[in-house]
Amino acid sequence: MAMDRLLEKIVELQNPTVAGLDPKLSYIPESIRAESYGKYGKALEGAADALLTFNKGLIDALCDVVPAVKPQAAYYEMYGWQGVKALTETIRYAREKGMAVITDGKRNDIGATMQAYASAHLGVTEVENETFEAFGADALTVNGYLGSDGIKPLLEVCKTGDKGIFVLVKTSNPSSGELQDKTLSDSATIYRTMGNMCENWGKELPGKYGYSGVGAVVGATYPAQLEELRKELPHTFFLVPGYGAQGGGAEDVAPAFDENGLGAIVNSSRGIMCAWQKENCAPEEYAQAARREAIRMRDEIVRRIGTIKLPK
Amino acid sequence: MAMDRLLEKIVELQNPTVAGLDPKLSYIPESIRAESYGKYGKALEGAADALLTFNKGLIDALCDVVPAVKPQAAYYEMYGWQGVKALTETIRYAREKGMAVITDGKRNDIGATMQAYASAHLGVTEVENETFEAFGADALTVNGYLGSDGIKPLLEVCKTGDKGIFVLVKTSNPSSGELQDKTLSDSATIYRTMGNMCENWGKELPGKYGYSGVGAVVGATYPAQLEELRKELPHTFFLVPGYGAQGGGAEDVAPAFDENGLGAIVNSSRGIMCAWQKENCAPEEYAQAARREAIRMRDEIVRRIGTIKLPK
Repeated sequence: MAMDRLLEKIVELQNPTVAGLDPKLSYIPESIRAESYGKYGKALEGAADALLTFNKGLIDALCDVVPAVKPQAAYYEMYGWQGVKALTETIRYAREKGMAVITDGKRNDIGATMQAYASAHLGVTEVENETFEAFGADALTVNGYLGSDGIKPLLEVCKTGDKGIFVLVKTSNPSSGELQDKTLSDSATIYRTMGNMCENWGKELPGKYGYSGVGAVVGATYPAQLEELRKELPHTFFLVPGYGAQGGGAEDVAPAFDENGLGAIVNSSRGIMCAWQKENCAPEEYAQAARREAIRMRDEIVRRIGTIKLPK
Repeated sequence: MAMDRLLEKIVELQNPTVAGLDPKLSYIPESIRAESYGKYGKALEGAADALLTFNKGLIDALCDVVPAVKPQAAYYEMYGWQGVKALTETIRYAREKGMAVITDGKRNDIGATMQAYASAHLGVTEVENETFEAFGADALTVNGYLGSDGIKPLLEVCKTGDKGIFVLVKTSNPSSGELQDKTLSDSATIYRTMGNMCENWGKELPGKYGYSGVGAVVGATYPAQLEELRKELPHTFFLVPGYGAQGGGAEDVAPAFDENGLGAIVNSSRGIMCAWQKENCAPEEYAQAARREAIRMRDEIVRRIGTIKLPK
């Protein structure tokens, strides 16, 4: 199951982090943009090519240090189908370089429609008895508001295709509490109820190392909830956004990990993508600056949580 | 605001329904598929071209009868970026034919990322100071689990671009109650709480006819909740899935409408797309069969709710 592979990769690289690939044109060195516009025009296609070139440079610089990338679908859809094509090629390139790919799409629907999303992002699509991979990520973020009808179709695809999902539980944004923190009449919060649903769904996808194929998104910006959920959801692996630009640090994410230093993967997007701008180094060094920041982040977190081990 | 335009179109055509464009290859007549495969290969690109050709036939046959189409993003993503290109061209074609387009993407995220989805599906994307329309729908379905941070970025785009959104409130699927029906400690259900959030968000997008630019998705399969929410949310226009194939009928959707016959638009997808298979007519008549079913559905609902009028 994809989560097992991800855990093994985290241990191999001693790095529980994921690089978010949420590229904006303003993050991309001008020389890359100019070359793409020259080839494909100063419009959606040229912009999409610039995103892809930028991503490939990042992947090359990160693939022996960072176990996974998390492209955020919105930043590709913004450039139309041309951007979505760049997403497809980004996913393919990262997988070729040995990285796990978590597509951050927060998809949600029911029944046959959720089945279509599962085929699209994690599985294969049938065309007259032949199968084709549309996007081919290792894992997908999903929104569980619609209940089991929205999750079950994914579990089938995860089982047969060695894939995983991350369900939104407690998100990192300031207003996440408007709904998620509300208390139900049985005195559990909504986020905890959603977390318990993940534990249940995960029973269908047990993992070798204690974590199921159904993970949860829990923000770094809510360390108390991270700690509560780590205890409450022993089989649920966490994807933790909110580190860096959103304000979370190593101390904030520490409660997401178990005694083996496993249990979570921490995302940084802008911190890594824009490291060259923060460092104020030459634009053509953007990928090396990203690598330096990824190493700094890894070291900061691993210093806090210690050596990462697979459970015996 | 897009919702005003939609209401005017509903009154003009005396038809409060929307045709879901959720095409599967098995719905598409063989001759269309064969021609597309001949041109673009029996793979994702050929399949995507078949979807587009099928959709164009439906749009031609429906555009003077049905006010809007609702393409479901999942069924296009399934065919990769090639499918997403077919979605783009479907949206463009429907708008050219005067139909309103509701992209059913159930998108959700926060801040700058939600802004990117808003630009992608409803707004424009900037490339070096020039703007381009990526998808260009009139409205988008969204999931509000992340709270206001996930909705606010859309409201800006709706305001400047004359667009609307539909937030998932009470979905049509059997398991929708697992989370949505839970009662909070203040004794409101989650779906009602989400509905009230829609009323609030809608204050920023008031409409000429009493309905704001923030609509809600409420399933036809839960008529009691439809009735409750129609009373509770007087400024929130409903998108009602679940008619036909999912089991809802005219009697079930009637509570979604106000005394003017406004307040909701009822979706049918398979019922319309697969009418030719149900009728068992010649495959090349698929679009005419879809039109017959759309007229039957319109008549069934309008017979129940009466003449539709804009409020004075």
